[in-house]
Amino acid sequence: MSEVKKINIALLGLGTVGTGVYKVLKSQQEEMPCKIGAELVIKKILVRNLEKAAAKVDDPSVLTNDWNEIIQDGEIEIVIEVMGGMEPAKTYMMQALAAGKNVVTANKDLVAVDGKELLDMAALNQKDFLFEAAVAGGIPIIRPLKQCLAGNHLSEVIGIVNGTTNFILTKMTEDGMEFADALAMATELGYAEADPTADVEGLDAGRKVAIMASIAFNSRVTFQDVYTEGITKITATDIRYAKEMGCHIKLLGVARNTEGGIEARVHPMLIPSTHPLAAVNDSFNAVFVHGDAVDDAMFYGRGAGELPTASAIVGDVCDIARNIRFGCTGRISCTCYKNLPIMKIEDVRSRYFLRMQVEDHPGVLASVASVFGNNGVSIEKIIQKTKRGDLAEIVVITDSIEGRHFDDSLKIFASMSMINEISAVIRVYGHS
Amino acid sequence: MSEVKKINIALLGLGTVGTGVYKVLKSQQEEMPCKIGAELVIKKILVRNLEKAAAKVDDPSVLTNDWNEIIQDGEIEIVIEVMGGMEPAKTYMMQALAAGKNVVTANKDLVAVDGKELLDMAALNQKDFLFEAAVAGGIPIIRPLKQCLAGNHLSEVIGIVNGTTNFILTKMTEDGMEFADALAMATELGYAEADPTADVEGLDAGRKVAIMASIAFNSRVTFQDVYTEGITKITATDIRYAKEMGCHIKLLGVARNTEGGIEARVHPMLIPSTHPLAAVNDSFNAVFVHGDAVDDAMFYGRGAGELPTASAIVGDVCDIARNIRFGCTGRISCTCYKNLPIMKIEDVRSRYFLRMQVEDHPGVLASVASVFGNNGVSIEKIIQKTKRGDLAEIVVITDSIEGRHFDDSLKIFASMSMINEISAVIRVYGHS
Repeated sequence: MSEVKKINIALLGLGTVGTGVYKVLKSQQEEMPCKIGAELVIKKILVRNLEKAAAKVDDPSVLTNDWNEIIQDGEIEIVIEVMGGMEPAKTYMMQALAAGKNVVTANKDLVAVDGKELLDMAALNQKDFLFEAAVAGGIPIIRPLKQCLAGNHLSEVIGIVNGTTNFILTKMTEDGMEFADALAMATELGYAEADPTADVEGLDAGRKVAIMASIAFNSRVTFQDVYTEGITKITATDIRYAKEMGCHIKLLGVARNTEGGIEARVHPMLIPSTHPLAAVNDSFNAVFVHGDAVDDAMFYGRGAGELPTASAIVGDVCDIARNIRFGCTGRISCTCYKNLPIMKIEDVRSRYFLRMQVEDHPGVLASVASVFGNNGVSIEKIIQKTKRGDLAEIVVITDSIEGRHFDDSLKIFASMSMINEISAVIRVYGHS
Repeated sequence: MSEVKKINIALLGLGTVGTGVYKVLKSQQEEMPCKIGAELVIKKILVRNLEKAAAKVDDPSVLTNDWNEIIQDGEIEIVIEVMGGMEPAKTYMMQALAAGKNVVTANKDLVAVDGKELLDMAALNQKDFLFEAAVAGGIPIIRPLKQCLAGNHLSEVIGIVNGTTNFILTKMTEDGMEFADALAMATELGYAEADPTADVEGLDAGRKVAIMASIAFNSRVTFQDVYTEGITKITATDIRYAKEMGCHIKLLGVARNTEGGIEARVHPMLIPSTHPLAAVNDSFNAVFVHGDAVDDAMFYGRGAGELPTASAIVGDVCDIARNIRFGCTGRISCTCYKNLPIMKIEDVRSRYFLRMQVEDHPGVLASVASVFGNNGVSIEKIIQKTKRGDLAEIVVITDSIEGRHFDDSLKIFASMSMINEISAVIRVYGHS
């Protein structure tokens, strides 16, 4: 063992994920020399509050609140950023790469917006910038897309990449709960944050879609390019109707590489109960991929949490350690060598589920059908569901149509006196 | 593009998988320089029948039936072996590695038996020996286990890794077919070979279990170490009873790292319908993994076929091409640095489902329970199912017990006159 190389690491942040990384590196300490031919040593941990952090580590002398102690330490070869947020995380990572250090991060907010800048800085310095943990937590997805599936033209990446909303939708599906109650339960159990906006509005999922699309299609997609729509308007009624049609409602992150450009979007969707994604429940995540060679594949697991996220980070660290040993850091850098257009959401084709409360008299169905017809929307089926007093509920499933045509129809419905309420608009997976 | 390196490849075999590799490399030809910084050129294809093969390629001048033309060609840096079988595949690969060429193979038969020898030869020459396609076809599993999950102590790898038997069991489950009829259907549809033994007896799955266990637990497991039991005795009745208990019957490859040693086995098993593996149907494969950091994860997709298998092979080729460019071939070699004992199947603990035809008179249940009791087998439940004339059918589910104790009980049952037939013995997933 005398020849085993020692690789020094700095950890930025000692919150949930940072603590997980610390634990996993400790637990793997003895095996690493055999596994990767190197000893991994946490030399410094950057924290805000030294006293509070001291309780979390064996040896508090590794703690510092001074970034200079890390950036100026030439012995530190890997920096793991788990502080989160845009700044100072970005500055620290740019400086680390510029100083010839390799960087691992779980920071999806940053990678989804400034990924190119960080990857370019890594390439310039022939260092690694890895972020497996930024998408779907512990689930291996970045490395499989970049390496294992490199022989494919990937056409579709669809994921359940937010555990909070999947937990909420699972409760609504299995127990018939309404959104507000399921959210309250998620908050109580610690699955939802005090401010759940980023989760329930699809923003968190949108960041992951940007990262996955960029890698899958070899063309840069940033968070700003992703259409996001959350689950706050989904009701127990919608879920019940979906079930009747053999479907589950899931919040899906969808990235598709089409002739018209890249589709990148997050929204709730009716998906057939036989689809592998429909069986992904509770806070689990999964990413479904279609490629011309591999056909369908799916990756399933824990999308968040202390140890699952740490698992992904330590996997990246091991990869870098191997690269350091073999002198080949920077071996895989940015793979966005195309410049494909991003489709506007109005141009994206989809099927739609529409639920409305209408006046219960003859001719209403015909009027609805005629508005759709005039706007180029063909209908797969239209069903009158229930009557309540003078009102009837109707449900329409459209064929696959451009978003703009559906939106145009909706605007007209909103102005029609015989239509009392547009209760739900949800996209439907697949083609009719 | 003037600096793009050209990497010459030899393909050994042009059957189903070889043709797939040829197609995928052609289809990716233009993108590869951007994707991996190298041009991949098929310089030679080794075939038995030059004339027959000529119809399958654009330029028949790459075809040869002389191995010397490949092994003596110093320009060939990667050899892809897709001939199958033990010899001459093994000799060719050993010679290629010894000559300083990198090798990719889909040959599970060989890797499951002689993997160590091949990996040692690769390490000695600092070349890559990769075999992602040998387990679960197109599904990324070897690289995720070796790299992405390197921060874990993996305790369990359970897979549906044979598409033929999964198709048969799906038909038996969904349509109530008996084994022979479902097998006939699988043969007709091309899912089963003329001699289906390796599939239906679990031998093919056993080879994959050996490979996965070796990688997951960092300790060599060969095919000879794997207990195998097929699905030929499973009946529609067993599947119906399993359903009543909320279970599916699947042929599972199970590898577990326990305190007593490594369990490596293939056999049918009742698995709860809520388990992600239960939803893996038709000819799809999936591998379910449990690690101390990542918790549960699953990898799902096509376990065989021309293009899915080629997808995995080309992924390996891309990895090697990147290593060649950066001068770091041999970067990841054998990771079996432990020498864990393999448990005998008699020592492995499991729950059991037992179905028997017994004489219908008082005291039989008591006798059965007493035999189990005397042999240290505790019972979770015992149910009398149906009566047919003088006979009654009883079903027993045991607690988790050692195989030897169950076997001892079975031997006694076989000798008891009141027991007319032991109709089914199937293991049950999980602990009671």
